[in-house]
Amino acid sequence: MKFVTFRANNATRLGVVQDQSVVDLNKLVPEVPADIRAALKAGVDLNAAARKALELATDADRQPLASLPYAPLVPEPGKIVCLGLNYFDHAKEGGREKPEYPWFFLRSATSLLAHGEQAIRPRVSERLDYEAELAVVIGKPARHVSQDDALNYVFGYTCFNDISVRDYQKRTPQWTIGKNFDKTGGFGPVLVSADELPPGAEGLHIQCRLNGNVMQDANTRDMIWNVKETIALLTECLTLEPGDVIIMGTPAGVGQARTPPVWMKQGDKVEIEIENIGVLVNTIRDEAA
Amino acid sequence: MKFVTFRANNATRLGVVQDQSVVDLNKLVPEVPADIRAALKAGVDLNAAARKALELATDADRQPLASLPYAPLVPEPGKIVCLGLNYFDHAKEGGREKPEYPWFFLRSATSLLAHGEQAIRPRVSERLDYEAELAVVIGKPARHVSQDDALNYVFGYTCFNDISVRDYQKRTPQWTIGKNFDKTGGFGPVLVSADELPPGAEGLHIQCRLNGNVMQDANTRDMIWNVKETIALLTECLTLEPGDVIIMGTPAGVGQARTPPVWMKQGDKVEIEIENIGVLVNTIRDEAA
Repeated sequence: MKFVTFRANNATRLGVVQDQSVVDLNKLVPEVPADIRAALKAGVDLNAAARKALELATDADRQPLASLPYAPLVPEPGKIVCLGLNYFDHAKEGGREKPEYPWFFLRSATSLLAHGEQAIRPRVSERLDYEAELAVVIGKPARHVSQDDALNYVFGYTCFNDISVRDYQKRTPQWTIGKNFDKTGGFGPVLVSADELPPGAEGLHIQCRLNGNVMQDANTRDMIWNVKETIALLTECLTLEPGDVIIMGTPAGVGQARTPPVWMKQGDKVEIEIENIGVLVNTIRDEAA
Repeated sequence: MKFVTFRANNATRLGVVQDQSVVDLNKLVPEVPADIRAALKAGVDLNAAARKALELATDADRQPLASLPYAPLVPEPGKIVCLGLNYFDHAKEGGREKPEYPWFFLRSATSLLAHGEQAIRPRVSERLDYEAELAVVIGKPARHVSQDDALNYVFGYTCFNDISVRDYQKRTPQWTIGKNFDKTGGFGPVLVSADELPPGAEGLHIQCRLNGNVMQDANTRDMIWNVKETIALLTECLTLEPGDVIIMGTPAGVGQARTPPVWMKQGDKVEIEIENIGVLVNTIRDEAA
């Protein structure tokens, strides 16, 4: 099944996507919490609830997906774990060796951005860069999980644009601040349940386009640590909770590695597409003075 | 006023401390949300509510602080921003120069630990180290805040033990994973409202004791970036929200910088004391095999 989170009456709600329309899951199956993290935490079978909603839906319950006011797919995850340098060709373009352990860092919810929202180029920097990534949404609490068992803890997958403020990312060896500017983490548009994709979402074409030009073009099988290896490594250290998100790193082609560098500017349109998942679209605007 | 978060009936509640006893703020002033982040977000005047609770409280409403089942002070902050190397003597003991910008990284809520709880030495490492730190709890949304205005956004202060798994912290240049093991971030015991402390909690004696031996002994005025400077720098980049936490870095004396290194082990007792705030106490236990 395919899920969206959208805004209505100053709150967010869960929707189920069918073809080019969406039905309000919370209206048709009112026992499902409107927040996907709360729903997963409560152990709701979201795929079953979505099937029920689609059965109950009349034509009047369907609204066109094209005009939906999206919210970030998980509006407030407990944590958002990101991997740096998880495609070797991207590590190389930055002059790095192949890493021997994932370069984990965290994003916070204030950095998230919905599909269709404007990403903000901050006042303090002109070095705004795109990063096409696969996002994993955790479905069940996971601790000390083996690789063989790891994918049982994944609820689904979506696209992420790990937009980075490069000069702040490089101000110290800790990248965190450059990855946590407000409204820089594009997250969506749809969450595809794991059963609809290959195990670990491997073998999917992933692409970033800037104003229609292909800037990154790769395949999720090229990750150094795949999804199951990443979950096994993370849960040696910490508990992954329902609604937690893992952002799987970006392939080669980022703006900072180009000659001359390419920085995103007001009016630019950036698209992250992952095969069988969808296309995440954001435009850039300058932060108000 | 002094606040605690404690566990009751599988939930957490807010308490107000007076001398050696605590009263249940949510029982006596039921309109206050039981979660301090929710209360701050709703704009509740917690100091006024606490005064009212103390006026209404009978002897029957007071329970001894000593037997309170504490929870982490803010059980689920929106974000927990930490500063590395914010005391020059600690940077030096690690062989580092004086930093030119704070080394920001994030902790997640799954890493938090209550006063009195057992911190976990994980299966995968023996290099468990203490770090005495001042914690700042944000009271109001803050973005592009000047140094002069910054302290108006602080609700209060408490103690933090930024317990670190040093080999994981150093596996890559990103320290994040070594700072996010389950139950390693001691947080409490009491939140002291800003009006009861010097501006920015400056000039306070801060100490870490391990099994009664003084390991770190410093003053909060020795920070490289003080609280108002830190808030101004952070809000250039992102929005600080009510209930967000800033962990202000640790002074010299950590275990890894000693010869031979000192690692915490099962049964150890670690105390973080900050003058006029309190003493955060945790013992260490090995993670179950």
